[in-house]
Amino acid sequence: MKRLGKYTLLFEHGPVILGHAAVCGKKEAEGPLADEFDQTFLDSYLAQDSWEKAESMLQTEAATLAIHKAGLQREDISMIFAGDLLNQCISSTFGLRDMDIPFLGQYGACSTMAQTLAMAAIMVESGAANYACAVTSSHFCTAERQFRSPLEYGSQRSPTAQWTATASGSTVLGRGAGIRIKHATVGRIKDFGVSDITNMGAAMAPAAAQTLLDYFTDTATKPSDYDHIFTGDLGTVGTALLHDLLRENHVEMRNHHDCGLLIYDRERQDVHAGGSGCGCSAGVLCGHILNAMERGELQNILFIATGALMSTTSSQQGESIPGIAHLIHLQKDQ
Amino acid sequence: MKRLGKYTLLFEHGPVILGHAAVCGKKEAEGPLADEFDQTFLDSYLAQDSWEKAESMLQTEAATLAIHKAGLQREDISMIFAGDLLNQCISSTFGLRDMDIPFLGQYGACSTMAQTLAMAAIMVESGAANYACAVTSSHFCTAERQFRSPLEYGSQRSPTAQWTATASGSTVLGRGAGIRIKHATVGRIKDFGVSDITNMGAAMAPAAAQTLLDYFTDTATKPSDYDHIFTGDLGTVGTALLHDLLRENHVEMRNHHDCGLLIYDRERQDVHAGGSGCGCSAGVLCGHILNAMERGELQNILFIATGALMSTTSSQQGESIPGIAHLIHLQKDQ
Repeated sequence: MKRLGKYTLLFEHGPVILGHAAVCGKKEAEGPLADEFDQTFLDSYLAQDSWEKAESMLQTEAATLAIHKAGLQREDISMIFAGDLLNQCISSTFGLRDMDIPFLGQYGACSTMAQTLAMAAIMVESGAANYACAVTSSHFCTAERQFRSPLEYGSQRSPTAQWTATASGSTVLGRGAGIRIKHATVGRIKDFGVSDITNMGAAMAPAAAQTLLDYFTDTATKPSDYDHIFTGDLGTVGTALLHDLLRENHVEMRNHHDCGLLIYDRERQDVHAGGSGCGCSAGVLCGHILNAMERGELQNILFIATGALMSTTSSQQGESIPGIAHLIHLQKDQ
Repeated sequence: MKRLGKYTLLFEHGPVILGHAAVCGKKEAEGPLADEFDQTFLDSYLAQDSWEKAESMLQTEAATLAIHKAGLQREDISMIFAGDLLNQCISSTFGLRDMDIPFLGQYGACSTMAQTLAMAAIMVESGAANYACAVTSSHFCTAERQFRSPLEYGSQRSPTAQWTATASGSTVLGRGAGIRIKHATVGRIKDFGVSDITNMGAAMAPAAAQTLLDYFTDTATKPSDYDHIFTGDLGTVGTALLHDLLRENHVEMRNHHDCGLLIYDRERQDVHAGGSGCGCSAGVLCGHILNAMERGELQNILFIATGALMSTTSSQQGESIPGIAHLIHLQKDQ
């Protein structure tokens, strides 16, 4: 492992994705990526007593499936990195409680898939882990009632609001051949003073721009060097802002897709500015993107997951919304 | 870096603690370790608008001081690992927002000091970071109102309850000579079914026992091979249980101290079963323990921080309290 420039890590061996799995709820299963999920749950409770327990179950299912698809057993996994949006990350701690795997809770809000993947990659590359697992989740109903208002109120949604995906994604990393993690850039917190909690895309776009610019500088590459660049989850508002911010820095990105705009059909599914939540970019990566790489449709991509690092308390106390974005460069062996 | 046994990492170079700092509030400054803190704040608000902002400020102060004492500047730090007890870890995200250091939020409840230290050590050892910083905090007033009840209610405290410390601790790791991280053991989640939220010590003791037993097995060592073994924060109830659990496994630990029992004078300070909170073990480590190692009073110690991975929601939904414990072995160069 080598440091490249100021913010980027180059993985000389390159940890390989041995297994990956994505699971989702009903709305996601009605969207354009329906066929890319390994498993869908039509019952928002997943037969549990509460939505929180259902979200934990999403992580149990995704991690178990990813380990199984890697041809491994739980006891082979040296470390599991997991996080989510719920207070004290209970989706992760309760979802993975019975797996008996050394556990390292991560908090990066909706950037968690990239963060856990970066951590798992560093562990495998350095020999700290033989196999490492990364997992995250979100659930529309748990996020709404924790961050906004009880679902029963039927609150009106703002046009800039994004829809929290009910989904979980997990990957298992190890040595071998296949889809390889080549670089990772750890983001810095960026706060442009956005305080509208119904406009997360705007709060996170500056962090996404900063991390992308850091990465292009550190690696001396440009957007057209990659098949696709995936952000998650900026939605329509954040995506437009990201392009503006990059253009101010003379970077034009014509091969960009946002996970929040891929997971739902905005015309048909009434999700306003797009999808969001840790499970959105996790589901799109661990389903759609990695499947497309395995099918040979994509060889060389960037995945930048973005997070809004606020709480209801910080917003009630008048704080703005700090953003963060972490980047992963994935390449398939020829 | 080598894996030793099933759960332990051996650091062959051994990242060194280049700087460390501990800051605290009024009650901690009236306790037996008063002289070991770098800075004390008698105003629980630290001149901020809210206790949450005050807790953020504790992290800003501790991290800034640790970086300064390491003889470094912010821009030298490759990565900062931070976490806390507040929903969405806002003490960390807001406290470190303006530092412009690549940020990786961690969630390990009161085990956070050991978790961030393990992460920082792995980064330095593997070359992923030149210098890495670890920091965590807690604040009595933010924890009480988030986890229990508004302070204004003046609720009666149970005899098994622990007092959340108002404190923060930070370390900066790099290469060099001094106090070295030799081993780390990442814990697994352990749940013995304790559901009494006023008895965290009991919920966390099984995890502490498990991690200690894993470490002794992996390294083929025993408690008497170390000067002192510090747990944080089991308090009186958890400490007694830990000794029982170890004895069941034929391990006797005569050189054990618990950070929750060191930070306050239980007779005089009315803290019931002892101290707790991320800042308790962080403050004791980054103040008292590391100072004692620098003074030459201790050469070779184990630090095991324990966390209770619950939220008010999980408890209200009838869940038990899962525990976790991570271990760090510190040794001073001869």
